[in-house]
Amino acid sequence: MRKFEEVTTETREIFKGKIIHLNVDTVTLPDGNTSKREIIKHPGAVAVIAQKEDGKIIFVEQYRKALEKSLVEIPAGKLEAGEDPIVTAKRELEEETGYTTNQLELINSFYTSPGFADELVNVYFTSQLIPLEEKVAGDDDEFVELLELTLGEAEKLEKEQRIHDAKTSYALLYLKLRGLK
Amino acid sequence: MRKFEEVTTETREIFKGKIIHLNVDTVTLPDGNTSKREIIKHPGAVAVIAQKEDGKIIFVEQYRKALEKSLVEIPAGKLEAGEDPIVTAKRELEEETGYTTNQLELINSFYTSPGFADELVNVYFTSQLIPLEEKVAGDDDEFVELLELTLGEAEKLEKEQRIHDAKTSYALLYLKLRGLK
Repeated sequence: MRKFEEVTTETREIFKGKIIHLNVDTVTLPDGNTSKREIIKHPGAVAVIAQKEDGKIIFVEQYRKALEKSLVEIPAGKLEAGEDPIVTAKRELEEETGYTTNQLELINSFYTSPGFADELVNVYFTSQLIPLEEKVAGDDDEFVELLELTLGEAEKLEKEQRIHDAKTSYALLYLKLRGLK
Repeated sequence: MRKFEEVTTETREIFKGKIIHLNVDTVTLPDGNTSKREIIKHPGAVAVIAQKEDGKIIFVEQYRKALEKSLVEIPAGKLEAGEDPIVTAKRELEEETGYTTNQLELINSFYTSPGFADELVNVYFTSQLIPLEEKVAGDDDEFVELLELTLGEAEKLEKEQRIHDAKTSYALLYLKLRGLK
């Protein structure tokens, strides 16, 4: 038995959506008592730290309905079923930014909200960007605007909370540690 | 109207749980088409980067049912309704680690999963830790184990994916940028 393992005695399926599923599990705790766990199942995601030759970083601004505001984020997207994350990363980069690449380095991966969701984000880095000659169509319901910013400009947006999500804040620290200005 | 705003025409309440609520919103997109948005409402959370006098950082290991494994994370917890995040931060530090503090610096905040959830994490830093004389009881259904690690030891756990969540990976970069070893 794994440390502090919680053994599921019942799973109640509440919702199966386009993107997320919600289950409520009844669990037996390490002390023998029972509790409920509300769990979101998510297909997983990728994010790409894309650095141009001139040192500028590529961001996209989009409306986030859950927050009722727009955020400036590094390019990112959800995995299709069974998709290799590196394939998703290249696709999302092409759809959202108009660049492609043949070189994506996986720099880290992390669960975004381990308390209630299994969403895992794979974070890639590339400094080998190739402009696409023709735009690649993205999802019908996604409207994004491209921004190319120095790290200093991005840090200013973070102070203004126009950059305000975990993967993008992580990316800014990562780039600062690499010595970017 | 805000950039790319999506106007809600209908909200369907799917689930109201102990921790999360799930709504499905029907929205009108900027191009006039309609789409659905699956949205998790979360009370928000705090996380604390707690550095001891000897430079070691405090972590807690706990079972994460959504992942069916234990993770080593910085101390964290959910806000109670209407609670000031700094009060939550002090409480969670006391309950999970056996230390308290009178000095918590808010270093950043970020949404963990802006694509589907409104969970906002406030991240605090303290290097002014005071051992509690008596243990403070935490939630009945939480079982955590304390770890005190150098940054190098924590980075090793991250490579092994025992540290594997966004706020903790963010914390490790933050500490590295402060010059910790």
